[in-house]
Amino acid sequence: MRSPDLFLDHAHTLLGRRGLTRDAQDLAPWSTDWRGRFHGRPLALAAPPDTATLSALVALCHEHRIALVPQGGNSGMSGGATPDASGAQLLLSLRRMNAIRTLDLAERRVTCEAGVILQTLHEAAEAQGLRFPLTLGGKGSATVGGLIATNAGGTQVLRHGTMRALVLGIEAVLADGRIYSALTPLRKDNRGFDLKQLFIGAEGVNGIVTAATLQLVPAVAERVVAWVGVTSLTQARHLLQACEDALGPGVEGFEVLPQSCLDHVLEHLPGSRAPLADRHAWHALIEFARPATASSAHETPPTPLRDAVEQALATALEDGLIEDAVLAASETQAEAFWRLRESISPAERARGPAVQHDISVPVESMPAFIAQAAPQLEREWPGTHALAFGHLGDGNVHFHVVAPPGVAPEAWYANDAKAISRRVHDLVTEWGGSISAEHGIGQLKRDELARLGDPVALDLLRAVKHALDPLGLLNPGKLL
Amino acid sequence: MRSPDLFLDHAHTLLGRRGLTRDAQDLAPWSTDWRGRFHGRPLALAAPPDTATLSALVALCHEHRIALVPQGGNSGMSGGATPDASGAQLLLSLRRMNAIRTLDLAERRVTCEAGVILQTLHEAAEAQGLRFPLTLGGKGSATVGGLIATNAGGTQVLRHGTMRALVLGIEAVLADGRIYSALTPLRKDNRGFDLKQLFIGAEGVNGIVTAATLQLVPAVAERVVAWVGVTSLTQARHLLQACEDALGPGVEGFEVLPQSCLDHVLEHLPGSRAPLADRHAWHALIEFARPATASSAHETPPTPLRDAVEQALATALEDGLIEDAVLAASETQAEAFWRLRESISPAERARGPAVQHDISVPVESMPAFIAQAAPQLEREWPGTHALAFGHLGDGNVHFHVVAPPGVAPEAWYANDAKAISRRVHDLVTEWGGSISAEHGIGQLKRDELARLGDPVALDLLRAVKHALDPLGLLNPGKLL
Repeated sequence: MRSPDLFLDHAHTLLGRRGLTRDAQDLAPWSTDWRGRFHGRPLALAAPPDTATLSALVALCHEHRIALVPQGGNSGMSGGATPDASGAQLLLSLRRMNAIRTLDLAERRVTCEAGVILQTLHEAAEAQGLRFPLTLGGKGSATVGGLIATNAGGTQVLRHGTMRALVLGIEAVLADGRIYSALTPLRKDNRGFDLKQLFIGAEGVNGIVTAATLQLVPAVAERVVAWVGVTSLTQARHLLQACEDALGPGVEGFEVLPQSCLDHVLEHLPGSRAPLADRHAWHALIEFARPATASSAHETPPTPLRDAVEQALATALEDGLIEDAVLAASETQAEAFWRLRESISPAERARGPAVQHDISVPVESMPAFIAQAAPQLEREWPGTHALAFGHLGDGNVHFHVVAPPGVAPEAWYANDAKAISRRVHDLVTEWGGSISAEHGIGQLKRDELARLGDPVALDLLRAVKHALDPLGLLNPGKLL
Repeated sequence: MRSPDLFLDHAHTLLGRRGLTRDAQDLAPWSTDWRGRFHGRPLALAAPPDTATLSALVALCHEHRIALVPQGGNSGMSGGATPDASGAQLLLSLRRMNAIRTLDLAERRVTCEAGVILQTLHEAAEAQGLRFPLTLGGKGSATVGGLIATNAGGTQVLRHGTMRALVLGIEAVLADGRIYSALTPLRKDNRGFDLKQLFIGAEGVNGIVTAATLQLVPAVAERVVAWVGVTSLTQARHLLQACEDALGPGVEGFEVLPQSCLDHVLEHLPGSRAPLADRHAWHALIEFARPATASSAHETPPTPLRDAVEQALATALEDGLIEDAVLAASETQAEAFWRLRESISPAERARGPAVQHDISVPVESMPAFIAQAAPQLEREWPGTHALAFGHLGDGNVHFHVVAPPGVAPEAWYANDAKAISRRVHDLVTEWGGSISAEHGIGQLKRDELARLGDPVALDLLRAVKHALDPLGLLNPGKLL
């Protein structure tokens, strides 16, 4: 016999009071995504303490045909962890599974459970003189499981890659409750295709990530932050290549923004000032880092990174590649440079209603894409202001379109904003890009993916999903 | 109506005389794997000239339920590209599809068809001052498609990873003939899980790789090869870590062999001599490289790599980490060092019948595994000589067991050798390792994978395979 009530009875026996709740107050904070766009009504909130219990719970869901919505820190950008409003989906919190199981200093890797918060992971690595290099704004709430399920990016992707590049091994619970366990990382293993990839960036639709073994890197010994003025995005790209040629893996981040963006930030941010004296068509914010090495004690220190960066930028200036440049003189100034970059979104929001797009195009197309797309949008929607900025190094463009002054926000969001987003997604697709560079599909972009995705790729996603979850119980309505 | 004859008529119309043959002489070289272990009898040999024709051919196979065996250079180690003896499987050669479509100097990447030979790819990259870093013994025949389908490794994996790490984009033909095309690499793209992974290391059972976009790296500006004597494998591991701490990504290869192995090679190889004067329990062969950078012209050259390596090894000697070390004084001497390493297999074969195993264990377990497994095998099969050597940096052990002197080879291969292999695979599985580090499963290890593989992992492999090829037409009898 199957019924939600019978399921809840069994689940209660399995999880106890601490592990299962239907209390409206307990459910409330987790039933809406943090941006407040999606509102769900879960059957209950389950929080198993370990993989074995989670496995038994998923088997019970399978038996009773109960759909599951896995959730970590509930800080996703696309509604991927919010249940629907049916009251029939079980919200499955991974937050209690927050143990760091092992940290191997010599091998520079850590095995931790899905509920470990990114900030906690950073601190655990730092305590051992190591570093987990992925970082992002939501690090105080985002969990390892959610970061894997969404293949999170962030500001250090240029050097260390997205989450996918940092996952060495995975443990996941499958739709029928069985545990796939591959946490022992083998550097070389050719027993078929790489199964862990089925769970990375899959938004929980193929299985529930319960633990992972992650790559750590040496701590940063020296950091240099530069602000550079250039005449065009094409020049910014040449500058990036020159920096990489001169400093190789030392280039950790490379952000670009137009002068108008900087103007808005300076207006918005009290007490802020422009890093450079003159105005430039484009500004680049570059972060360089040199890792600590165990051998530093033995050897004469290498040329300080700061000297190498100064030399590289001096050469770029001589070559006419850049107009001006300044290095942050202190950590405080470095933070001030980054604060300018991080204030772009709030500054734009303060100017009025705006739609933001998380898109990518092939790196080499980014200058041309921005040069074409922004004026085109402004022509098609007179009075709007379109601006693009972001991670030049990895082709990830933040494309914002600000509403004409004085419009009624609600009507604008309901009509023009939606049409604008479709237009931006059309353009990005024409340019061979992605409508989701780093935030995933979730509920937010599911229909747009169905509309614009390559039909063969969509069929592959669906075929694999159906093979792993034939009853469609894992995070239904997300991604596909 | 379906029949092999009707299929052949249609295929002939599609491919023409050059593209389809049933001539016994044409078929012979491709019907047996190069090691001569597997002998097949194909229905015919098809060699389409381009992706569109290959797509039409696969659709025709799908319509007529004809099984396909994709083949590149026919240099695989596990019989993965050899048809069965039924006479019903179509051998599908990718060798005519050998165009390098584009090579992007600024983005350091190349898009080439599946039939491009590795050596050709090396030369194309070198002609542009770049390098495709994956290399292996069969580079004169191995093709890009085969290298991807088997996730090939080789001697530079420590620094640059296996094929998987170098594939940026893929084009593949699916079981029903449709083309999955994702050759334009986006650095960031979160539209679901990474579909190209379904084809890497999948041995052609999920789809046929027809083209790929691959990562190139800067050419090598300076190369230093060192030969080091150490007292144990554990010390060799510490040495590797010390080298990585001192030289970071400059360590490209790190091979180890025991003294007995070196003795056999010196006996076997006319005119060869030991790099070091004394005998040591273990020897390490280390390759260091410094990439060329565009900025070299502008700047004062960095500390020569050779000085840095000398300093790192001097420190290791002072610290008692190593017993002795020598740097190759010339390219000729560097080649001579590598020849010693590459002659281990022929030297062992010359001593009599032997079974070889391509296995891996977690990197940190490798010293303990070798210390246990080799004596254990020798105890269980008295008179055998077991020896392990290989890529210490990535946990890939070459584990050879040489037959007792004087045994009859055929009987030994038919009985003891098989039992020994099963025992080695049992041990490796107990140690959390892989029965195939780099050569794949193919036909050779299919039954052993079924016997020893994690049942959940095997089910995942099967579920995905069945979802992508429900009729089982793509390379049947391989991997699964």
